Amino acid sequence: MDILNNHVTIRKFKDKPLSKDLLESIIYSGCRASTTGNMQVYSVIITEDNNRKKELAPYHFNQPVAINAPVLLTFVADFNRFSKWCQFNNANPGYSNFISFFTAAIDALLVAQNVCVAAENNGLGICYLGTTTYNAAEIINILKLPRLTFPVTTVAIGYPDESPVQPDRLPLEGVIHIEEYKDYTKELIDKFYTFKEGLESSKEFIKENKKETLAQVFTDVRYKEGDNEFFSGKMIQTLKDQGFLE
Amino acid sequence: MDILNNHVTIRKFKDKPLSKDLLESIIYSGCRASTTGNMQVYSVIITEDNNRKKELAPYHFNQPVAINAPVLLTFVADFNRFSKWCQFNNANPGYSNFISFFTAAIDALLVAQNVCVAAENNGLGICYLGTTTYNAAEIINILKLPRLTFPVTTVAIGYPDESPVQPDRLPLEGVIHIEEYKDYTKELIDKFYTFKEGLESSKEFIKENKKETLAQVFTDVRYKEGDNEFFSGKMIQTLKDQGFLE
Repeated sequence: MDILNNHVTIRKFKDKPLSKDLLESIIYSGCRASTTGNMQVYSVIITEDNNRKKELAPYHFNQPVAINAPVLLTFVADFNRFSKWCQFNNANPGYSNFISFFTAAIDALLVAQNVCVAAENNGLGICYLGTTTYNAAEIINILKLPRLTFPVTTVAIGYPDESPVQPDRLPLEGVIHIEEYKDYTKELIDKFYTFKEGLESSKEFIKENKKETLAQVFTDVRYKEGDNEFFSGKMIQTLKDQGFLE
Repeated sequence: MDILNNHVTIRKFKDKPLSKDLLESIIYSGCRASTTGNMQVYSVIITEDNNRKKELAPYHFNQPVAINAPVLLTFVADFNRFSKWCQFNNANPGYSNFISFFTAAIDALLVAQNVCVAAENNGLGICYLGTTTYNAAEIINILKLPRLTFPVTTVAIGYPDESPVQPDRLPLEGVIHIEEYKDYTKELIDKFYTFKEGLESSKEFIKENKKETLAQVFTDVRYKEGDNEFFSGKMIQTLKDQGFLE
C-alpha cells in the first residue's frame, strides 16, 4: 500500500536511461491488468529518441517534463490489431464505433496505471501528460497511429531528481457515496474544500493569478470553457477520423 | 510486482463482508492516484445493499458476480461536484463538454485500478464489470447520478472463493511499438496469436460456439457489430442527457 499511498508526481528526472529489461518488466506488469474479454485492445508506444520527443513536445504544451524524461509511454486504445486478427481469421470485425473506442480506452488506462505502480515500485517516478487527448490528431501523426487507434494518455518515466511534497486530496467522504449519490449542498462543498482553500499554496495561486477565489483560477486560467469547447470539438473530429464514430 | 503480475479475475466470493475500515482504506489508496490538475473529478458509489444489487443486476447482464460479491464499487466520472464548488465560489464552470467527460473518465479509471491493486494487496479479489458503459442510463437512474456525472466502470470486490488459472496474454512484443506504430501484417498477427489459438480452452470455445475460428467467437457471439452499434448510440445519448455533449 505504501507505493500507492506515497505516490507523488515527478517532473524532474536524473539523466539516466532505463534499462531495456526494466522498461519491459514494468510494461509486462501493466499488461497483467484486467482487459475486456481478454482482447487486450491497447498498444504502448515507447518514445526514447530525443528528436521525436522534440517533435511531440509542442503537443504536450512544451511541458519540460515531456522533453526531460528519459522515456515517454503513450497508451493507445487499439482496435486495429484485434480487427486485423479477425480479418485474417475469416471473421468480420464490428469495432468502428464509440463503445469500442471507450472499451479500448478503459483497457489502455488500466494498463497505464499498473505501469505507473510497477515503475514506482522499482524506484522510478512518473508524470501523466493530460495533453494527449487535447492534441491526439498531431500525436497520431507523429507516432504513425493507424485507423481504429487513439492515444488516451502519455506517461513520462525516469529516475526522480526531486522529492516533492505530496499534494492535498479531498477528505474521503467528499468522494464516496453510500448506495446513492448524495448531491453536494453549499454546506458540504464548504466542508470538503475548506482544507484545500486554506492552504498557503492555494492563497499564493489566487494572488499570482489575480483572482478572487481558487475556483476562478481553474475556470478562468487553467481549465477554461473556451479551451474545453475547442478541444472537445477537436477530439470528436479525431475520433471520426480514426474510424470510431462512423 | 507480485501483486500486479499474479492478478486473476475473481468471480466467486466467500460470504464475508468487508470491514468499513478495509473498504475505506482501499478507496483511500485509490484516491492517491494521479488526477488532472488535482481536481479529483470522480466519485465512488458503494453498493452493499442486496436489494440494490438485484436492481442493478439486469444492467450487468445478470452476471452472478454482480449479485454474489459483497461490494460493488461504481466509479463515476464526476464534474458535478467540481462545478458546484465553482458556482459556490463565484466562478463560472465550463465543463459540459466531451473533453471534460473524458478527463473525468481517465481520473475515475486510474482510481479504479489503484483500488483493485490495493484490494488484492489485502487478500481480496476483484472483477471488472464492463457492462457499466453499456447500460449507463439505467445505472445512472438507480444510483441517482446527477447531470455532469457518468459511471465508467464497476468493480465487484470480496474475499476470493476460487483460485482460477491466470489467463494468457499476447507476447509483450505484440503490444509494444518502438518510437512508431508498426502495423500488423498477417505474419505478425499469426506470430502473436498462435499461442492463444493453440490453447485447449480456445479450441473448446470454438467448438462450443460452432464456429470455425476463435476470432469468429468474438465477432459473431461475444462482441457483435450490431450490439456495439446499439450500445454506442445509447452511450452517446446518455452522454448528451448527462450534459457532456451540449
